[in-house]
Amino acid sequence: MRMYDIIKKKRDGEELSTEEINFFIENYVRDIIPDYQASALLMAIYLKKMNERETLDLTKAIINSGETVDLSDIKGIKVDKHSTGGVGDKTTLALGPMVAACGVPFVKMSGRGLGHTGGTLDKLESIKGFRVELTRDELIDNANKINIAICSQSSNITPGDKKLYGLRDVTATVDDISLIASSVMSKKLAIKSDAILLDVKIGKGAFMHDLKDGIELAKEMVKIGTGYGRKTIAVLTNMDEPLGYGVGNALEVKEAIETLKGRGPRDFTELCLILGSKLLILSQKVKNEDEGRTRIKEVINNGKAYEKFLELVKCQGGDVNFVENTDLLPKSTYIFELKSNKEGHVRSINAEEVGKCDIILGAGRQVKNSPLDLSAGIVFSVKVDDFVKRGDTLCYIHSNSIEKENEVAEKLIKIIEIGEKNPVEKKLLYGEVTKDEVKLY
Amino acid sequence: MRMYDIIKKKRDGEELSTEEINFFIENYVRDIIPDYQASALLMAIYLKKMNERETLDLTKAIINSGETVDLSDIKGIKVDKHSTGGVGDKTTLALGPMVAACGVPFVKMSGRGLGHTGGTLDKLESIKGFRVELTRDELIDNANKINIAICSQSSNITPGDKKLYGLRDVTATVDDISLIASSVMSKKLAIKSDAILLDVKIGKGAFMHDLKDGIELAKEMVKIGTGYGRKTIAVLTNMDEPLGYGVGNALEVKEAIETLKGRGPRDFTELCLILGSKLLILSQKVKNEDEGRTRIKEVINNGKAYEKFLELVKCQGGDVNFVENTDLLPKSTYIFELKSNKEGHVRSINAEEVGKCDIILGAGRQVKNSPLDLSAGIVFSVKVDDFVKRGDTLCYIHSNSIEKENEVAEKLIKIIEIGEKNPVEKKLLYGEVTKDEVKLY
Repeated sequence: MRMYDIIKKKRDGEELSTEEINFFIENYVRDIIPDYQASALLMAIYLKKMNERETLDLTKAIINSGETVDLSDIKGIKVDKHSTGGVGDKTTLALGPMVAACGVPFVKMSGRGLGHTGGTLDKLESIKGFRVELTRDELIDNANKINIAICSQSSNITPGDKKLYGLRDVTATVDDISLIASSVMSKKLAIKSDAILLDVKIGKGAFMHDLKDGIELAKEMVKIGTGYGRKTIAVLTNMDEPLGYGVGNALEVKEAIETLKGRGPRDFTELCLILGSKLLILSQKVKNEDEGRTRIKEVINNGKAYEKFLELVKCQGGDVNFVENTDLLPKSTYIFELKSNKEGHVRSINAEEVGKCDIILGAGRQVKNSPLDLSAGIVFSVKVDDFVKRGDTLCYIHSNSIEKENEVAEKLIKIIEIGEKNPVEKKLLYGEVTKDEVKLY
Repeated sequence: MRMYDIIKKKRDGEELSTEEINFFIENYVRDIIPDYQASALLMAIYLKKMNERETLDLTKAIINSGETVDLSDIKGIKVDKHSTGGVGDKTTLALGPMVAACGVPFVKMSGRGLGHTGGTLDKLESIKGFRVELTRDELIDNANKINIAICSQSSNITPGDKKLYGLRDVTATVDDISLIASSVMSKKLAIKSDAILLDVKIGKGAFMHDLKDGIELAKEMVKIGTGYGRKTIAVLTNMDEPLGYGVGNALEVKEAIETLKGRGPRDFTELCLILGSKLLILSQKVKNEDEGRTRIKEVINNGKAYEKFLELVKCQGGDVNFVENTDLLPKSTYIFELKSNKEGHVRSINAEEVGKCDIILGAGRQVKNSPLDLSAGIVFSVKVDDFVKRGDTLCYIHSNSIEKENEVAEKLIKIIEIGEKNPVEKKLLYGEVTKDEVKLY
C-alpha cells in the first residue's frame, strides 16, 4: 500500500477502504508518512468528503493509535459529556458536581487545547493547589468515593488526533464535519464510559455557525458513537452570545460556583438543567426530563451540588477557601467599567469577537503551552434582548494591562450592539439528535 | 499575508491575487512556507482549479524565483521546442541538427528529470566524451558558430518549479492542467528564445490520455506563452505507441542518427518534418509548411543534417567515432529476440506499459539521480497496424540481466496485442493550437 495511491483515490472522490485508513493513521503517527502527504490527503478529504463508514473507520484508527482508558472499575453507569466549545462555556464545572450529587459517576478527562479562554483544567487551576494530574488509581478511587473526578487526559490517548489536529490547524482543513466528528469522538470513545452526551454549540462563537451544519455534525457524531456501540445523544444549543456573564478563567470558576449555589445566570443555569436531566436519563437515574430537572433543582436548592464541588476540590488537593471565598481567586489589577453610550435593546454580543478580546487580554491561548492570565476576562452586565439606558454598565473588563484594557474596551463598545428590539426571541435549545431522529424545538 | 488564508481562499474556490501567488512562491522557495502548507494548497488548486490569470501569475512567480537566460547575443530568431514527454521520444536529437542545418539557431537546455528513459542529456552521454555542461559563453559561441547547442539547465533556473514538482510528484497533484502548464512554461520562458513550439503528446504513454485534455493543456500553455509576450504554438501528436522503433538511451541515439541519414522510422521522420517545418516558419526561414518540409527533406537528403550532428558532437567534446560507427555506443550483454505466438495485425503497443518495461531494464529513472543503464532498452520490429505471422520477430530486448530480460519479455508478449485489424487508421498529428484557434485534422 502506498500513501500516494490513497491521496489519489480520495482526490478522485473515491471511498477509502478500512485498510487504507488504518495504513494512513498508523504510519502517520509513527512519522513514516510525512506531514506534506497527510495535508494533501486532508485537503482532498475536506473537498471530496468521507462517508459514514470512512468516518467511523477513521475514528477507530485514531482510537487505536494510542491507549484507551478502562473505567469498568467504577461502579454505576458512567456518562461522559462533551461540548464542541464556545465562549464562556464553564459547563463542566457546574454540571459535573450537580449530576455527581444525584449519584451519577462523572469522570471527565480534558486536554488543554487552544481557545478563547483556557480549558476546564486551566480554569480549575485558578483554585490554589488543585491537582489536575491524577493516576488511574486515584481517578477510579475518587470516582467511586465521591462520584466525580476531573483530570488531564494522558498524552498517550489518541496521539493520531493530536498530530492530525495540529496539521489541520495550519492547513485550513479544520472545519470539515467528518474530520471534526472523528476528532471529537475518538477522544470520547478512547475513554470507556457507558454513554455520551454531546453539546453541539451553534452560532457566532462556535465551530458550527448555522443550525444545518450543527445538525450534520451532531448526526455524524451520534452515528460514530452508536456505530462504536456506545449510547450517544446530542443536544444543539445556542452560542451566538457568550454563555452566562463571565468569560475568563477565574471569572468563570466564580460564576460556576454561583450557579451551583442557585444564583447563576439564567441561560447557564438552564443549560445545566437541560444537560443534567439528559445525563440522569442516560445513567438511568430518572425516567424523563421533568424528573431530571426536578432532581437537579433539588441538589442545587439543598446545597448538595455545591458541597459536591467542595468535595471535588478537596479530593484533588485544592484549597476549599478559594471556593468558599471567591475573592481569593486570581484577581486583575485593573477593572474597567464599560458604560453604554446609547439607549435601546441589546441586539447582539458576537461571541466570536468576545473570544478574540479574551485572547488579547491573555485569558486564552493562540499558541500551544503559552501561559495564561487566569485573572483576566470580561464580566457582562447585560445579555442579548436586555434594555439599557445611556450610562448603564455594559460589562467589566478585568486586565493586568491598561493598554490591553483600552484596546478591548474600544472593541466591546462595538461588539455589544444596541438598537431596536430583535424581532425574534432568542432560543437556548435548538434541538436534539438521537440515533433514530432529529428533534427541533 | 498568511499562507493559511491563501489555502483557505483557494479551498473555498476563490481566485488568488497576484500578490498572494507571489507570496506563496517567494516564501516557499526560501523554505519559509513548509511543504505541508504548500501541499494543502496544491490539492486545493488541483480540485478547485486556477483561472488563466492565476496560471499566468504562477508561471511568472516561478520564473522570478530564479535566474533567467538571456540569448540575445545569439544572432537570428531563436526557437525553442518542447515535448510534454513520451516513450521513445528522441526528437531533439534529430530535429535540432535538421533545423540548425537549415540556418535556425537551435539552443536546447534540458533538465534530467525522471521517466521511462533518461532525458536528452542522458542519451547524449552515451556518446563518449560528450559534455552537457556548458558555460553561458560556450553556449552562445557554439550557437553562433554552428547554430546548435544542447546542454544542461542551470540549477538556478526556476528553483520554484523544481521544489513544487518534487512535492506534486508525491502528493498526487501532478496532472492538473494549470500546474503542468505553469511548470512547463516557466522553464521555457526563463530561457529567452524568440518563439516556442510545443509538442503536446496525447495517448497512453503521455501525461494527457485524451485529446480533450491535450487541447486544454495546449491552449493553457499557448495562452501563458502569448501572455508573457512570446510567440507560441502547439501541435498535438499521438503517443499511444512508442515513437519510432527504439526505446532506451543509446538505442535512441542510434535511431536518431539513422533518421538524420534518412533511414529512420516513418512515424519519427514524419514528426521531424512536422515540427521542423513549424520551427522554420516560426524563425521566418520559410513561408509555409510545404516549403518547410522541402527544406528539412533537403538537409536530410544532402547529408547536411547528419553533418550538423557530427559538428554538435565534436563541438561539445564528444567522440565522433561513436556517431560514425554506432556499434561503439554502449551495448547490452544480452539481446533477446521476442517472437510472435499469433498471426494477425498489431492492435496496440501500450506506450505507458513499454515505459514501465524500460524502467525494469534500468533505462529509466524512478528516483532522482539514480544511475542509468544506457545500453538497455527495447527495439521493436513492428508498429501498430503491421501484419505479423506466428514466429515473426516482435522486438529485441537489450539488457544486462537475464532475469530482467525474462520479466520484460513476459510483459511485452501481452503488451504487443495482436488480433483483428483496427477499424480506424492511426494518426500521428491530431491538430494544432495557436493563440487564435484550435485546428483539428
